[in-house]
Amino acid sequence: MERQSLQGLYVEHLRDLYSAEQQILTALPKLIEKASHPELRRALEEHRRVTEQHAQRLTDIFKQLGEKGSGTTCKGMQGIIAEGDELVRKFSDSDVLDAAIIAAAQRVEHYEIAAYGCARTYASTLGLGDQADALQKTLDEEGKADHTLTDLADEAVNVDAMKV
Amino acid sequence: MERQSLQGLYVEHLRDLYSAEQQILTALPKLIEKASHPELRRALEEHRRVTEQHAQRLTDIFKQLGEKGSGTTCKGMQGIIAEGDELVRKFSDSDVLDAAIIAAAQRVEHYEIAAYGCARTYASTLGLGDQADALQKTLDEEGKADHTLTDLADEAVNVDAMKV
Repeated sequence: MERQSLQGLYVEHLRDLYSAEQQILTALPKLIEKASHPELRRALEEHRRVTEQHAQRLTDIFKQLGEKGSGTTCKGMQGIIAEGDELVRKFSDSDVLDAAIIAAAQRVEHYEIAAYGCARTYASTLGLGDQADALQKTLDEEGKADHTLTDLADEAVNVDAMKV
Repeated sequence: MERQSLQGLYVEHLRDLYSAEQQILTALPKLIEKASHPELRRALEEHRRVTEQHAQRLTDIFKQLGEKGSGTTCKGMQGIIAEGDELVRKFSDSDVLDAAIIAAAQRVEHYEIAAYGCARTYASTLGLGDQADALQKTLDEEGKADHTLTDLADEAVNVDAMKV
């Protein structure tokens, strides 16, 4: 068995996350198109912008490590996106639809928070300080995106949805 | 279109979570069996115990709502568990395996944190205070389980894995 090391587990996580980010970049425009609430559209558009940066940070780390980023499909994200698609299709009414879009997006965020948290800890344990810092930056941005969605759901979308 | 309401979205989330909890109850024993670190085994066994309570809380809520809990398969959790299985198979060496098990379990926790967070907010918005409290209790326990796993990874498992 090759690569049975923490370094191997780290690279595995980076590839998993790279696949996840690519899947998110494909899925986000569809969610943005369906969202009604202007602040929700803005939050999702901002998230698409930072997702491109997150993918670029991973590409930079692969270069530093001399590793390829491709060849892995993140099955967790595949399941989360398939479920989100179903949820959004099921709740096609506009106000409840926004709440469903937020719910789908928060599952995506939390997957990333878990996986980036692990990758950051591995980088740190492996003494790869710069890579740990870059991953922490992404982690902070994922956390911020999740909080923005929670605030939107609490303050606006769920209350609107109650009126339906 | 029926059930295009926040109540419908709430019930959909409860069913999704019920399916997720059932999948976790099936998956956890396999992870426990493969874990080496005694504290990790204890943490996962404790989590199996509280998962049973979480499923029971959902069953109680379905009764209160006069709804059935079955009939939905949580695709997000299916993907996360399939990915975890693969990761654990790939890193079969015992010390790195523990780190991989923690990584798989944290993805499960974060999915639940996102979905229970939404369900709790819907219950609260719908004025279902007792149900919101029960869901918050589960949410707190999921958060606690996630922190226990982070502490284990930071303090013990990743450092052990570095020695491999």
